[in-house]
Amino acid sequence: MASSLKDVARYAGVSIKTVSNVVNGYVHVSAVTRAKVQQAIAALNYRPNTAARHLRQGRSGVIALALPELRAPYFAELAGFVVEAADERSLKVLIEQTDGARDRELEITEGVPGHLIDGLILSPLALTEDDLEQRTDRLPMILLGEQITDGAADRVVVDNVAAAEEAVAHLVSLGRRRIAAIGAQDAAPGATARLRLRGYRQALRRAGIAYDPSLVIPVEQFHRHDGALAMQGLLDLAQPPDAVFCFNDLLGLGALRTLLSHGLSVPGDVAVVGFDDIEESQYSTPTLTTVAPDKEEIARTAIDLLIKRFSGDHDALPRSVNPTYRLICRESTLGG
Amino acid sequence: MASSLKDVARYAGVSIKTVSNVVNGYVHVSAVTRAKVQQAIAALNYRPNTAARHLRQGRSGVIALALPELRAPYFAELAGFVVEAADERSLKVLIEQTDGARDRELEITEGVPGHLIDGLILSPLALTEDDLEQRTDRLPMILLGEQITDGAADRVVVDNVAAAEEAVAHLVSLGRRRIAAIGAQDAAPGATARLRLRGYRQALRRAGIAYDPSLVIPVEQFHRHDGALAMQGLLDLAQPPDAVFCFNDLLGLGALRTLLSHGLSVPGDVAVVGFDDIEESQYSTPTLTTVAPDKEEIARTAIDLLIKRFSGDHDALPRSVNPTYRLICRESTLGG
Repeated sequence: MASSLKDVARYAGVSIKTVSNVVNGYVHVSAVTRAKVQQAIAALNYRPNTAARHLRQGRSGVIALALPELRAPYFAELAGFVVEAADERSLKVLIEQTDGARDRELEITEGVPGHLIDGLILSPLALTEDDLEQRTDRLPMILLGEQITDGAADRVVVDNVAAAEEAVAHLVSLGRRRIAAIGAQDAAPGATARLRLRGYRQALRRAGIAYDPSLVIPVEQFHRHDGALAMQGLLDLAQPPDAVFCFNDLLGLGALRTLLSHGLSVPGDVAVVGFDDIEESQYSTPTLTTVAPDKEEIARTAIDLLIKRFSGDHDALPRSVNPTYRLICRESTLGG
Repeated sequence: MASSLKDVARYAGVSIKTVSNVVNGYVHVSAVTRAKVQQAIAALNYRPNTAARHLRQGRSGVIALALPELRAPYFAELAGFVVEAADERSLKVLIEQTDGARDRELEITEGVPGHLIDGLILSPLALTEDDLEQRTDRLPMILLGEQITDGAADRVVVDNVAAAEEAVAHLVSLGRRRIAAIGAQDAAPGATARLRLRGYRQALRRAGIAYDPSLVIPVEQFHRHDGALAMQGLLDLAQPPDAVFCFNDLLGLGALRTLLSHGLSVPGDVAVVGFDDIEESQYSTPTLTTVAPDKEEIARTAIDLLIKRFSGDHDALPRSVNPTYRLICRESTLGG
């Protein structure tokens, strides 16, 4: 016969409520108690009836993850980690693709029409603070990324300025002086582009290199195609750059493609740095130097924050968590 | 005021039932009637209340998509198309990652515990026909890929033998004679590997090239890492190959990396072909020749078959649909 919550409580010598707290992942349980309960769960081979549990708590056990597009490797890898982290907490994940369109992003902040979801993890590209102020829904929501900068909701966001500055400082340390940037965006949103550009300019300033706007190339999207095109523009300059900081890896891989197809050497002629550390960047030739945000940490943090929200922490002030990142130096700057 | 189904029916001069059939995407509506209804929907700016509609039909409006891992670009791209196609039919998609583990694949064929889903699209890697025979659930299910070969359920599957044969015949046509294969799998499942190997052997036989088992390299998984390792093994042979057919693009990109890091020329020394046409293969240097299954067609076909199933077509015999594919020849075989 299957073990019950009661069996586990008796075995562990704690109350049913305590077992329930452990099973539901609440944080206010001491490490010792948690260990006792986990031993009991293992010994009795207890499997919580998650569906019944969610329903008793007035929850569906389903969350939504809304991101621009699964086709972009960064979001696919991140979604993989979110589904994994959710799975460990017995949550199912509905995926919504917004294409980075404001109206779709706005829509999802009000929930998924006709579907009971417990919360939302949203990675917006176009949404503004004003949009969020008009939000009527109280759906627990975690924002990923830097698009929304005020405290409208819990956020998990890498320090983009510092990370970009570190990437460009690396190029400076290699003796590069004519350093281009691919990925600027003029549109009103585009916080990612703005912050990474700020880091780029800070690094130049600290190195005493004059800012040259002709070396900053705007793009429509952060796709390989845009990077390839932008690099072509840079090569057409009277004085092409000797290094380029791309605001994500796809732009960097597109730029690499253009450089190599012109018979140029990377990093000999032009050094290239990206941002994201998608798996592809470990296998390109040359491999791509990049800023690696800890995607697994981002996913776990988002799930934990969300669970806290719908476990009764509705009214706590919005939190902002900065996941760790590191600059990974590879062949595109160091050589092979 | 919002338009109702009744308004649309009156405007189009058809019955409410007919409007409902069009809105629900049923197939037995004439093209003329469908056009009339769609015009009326546009003119009245009618927005179906999909949630209410699903519930009236005893459906949740949610389907599950179970695939090995979102981190693999092929599955991420495919999932992107499935979510898109589902969205157009007002269906939401729950994502499950199985890691290709048999027990997880088996579990999902019985539905998502505690959640009402209308149907399932499953891309299995380990499940066998016997497993499916023991299935007790009547959940409508569409299988993607070649793992299950009998008529246990509706399937959408590329003709792997023909596609692999075409890929290897292309290498033969370029004058290659020592053609290796990366991606064999010895385990009991592994239908993909078996079928692609069969196509490889057929192409060799037709070209009068003797089959050399030392040129067929088994892999644990279809990841870049496995491809890089397998290529290393081939280069260590007394007589390395002059071409290699990789059973997917990730293996091919890993193999490319090994070849280039040894200073070898592709295709000069070794020509490389992959399978999947992930976007990365258009931007690698050299770009990768590959078999391109039409992923959008696979996604749309799966959604259409699934909707047919849960729209009353429960007892029709299982269907097998072969989506189109084409061999895309790029620099890794033709040169730059």
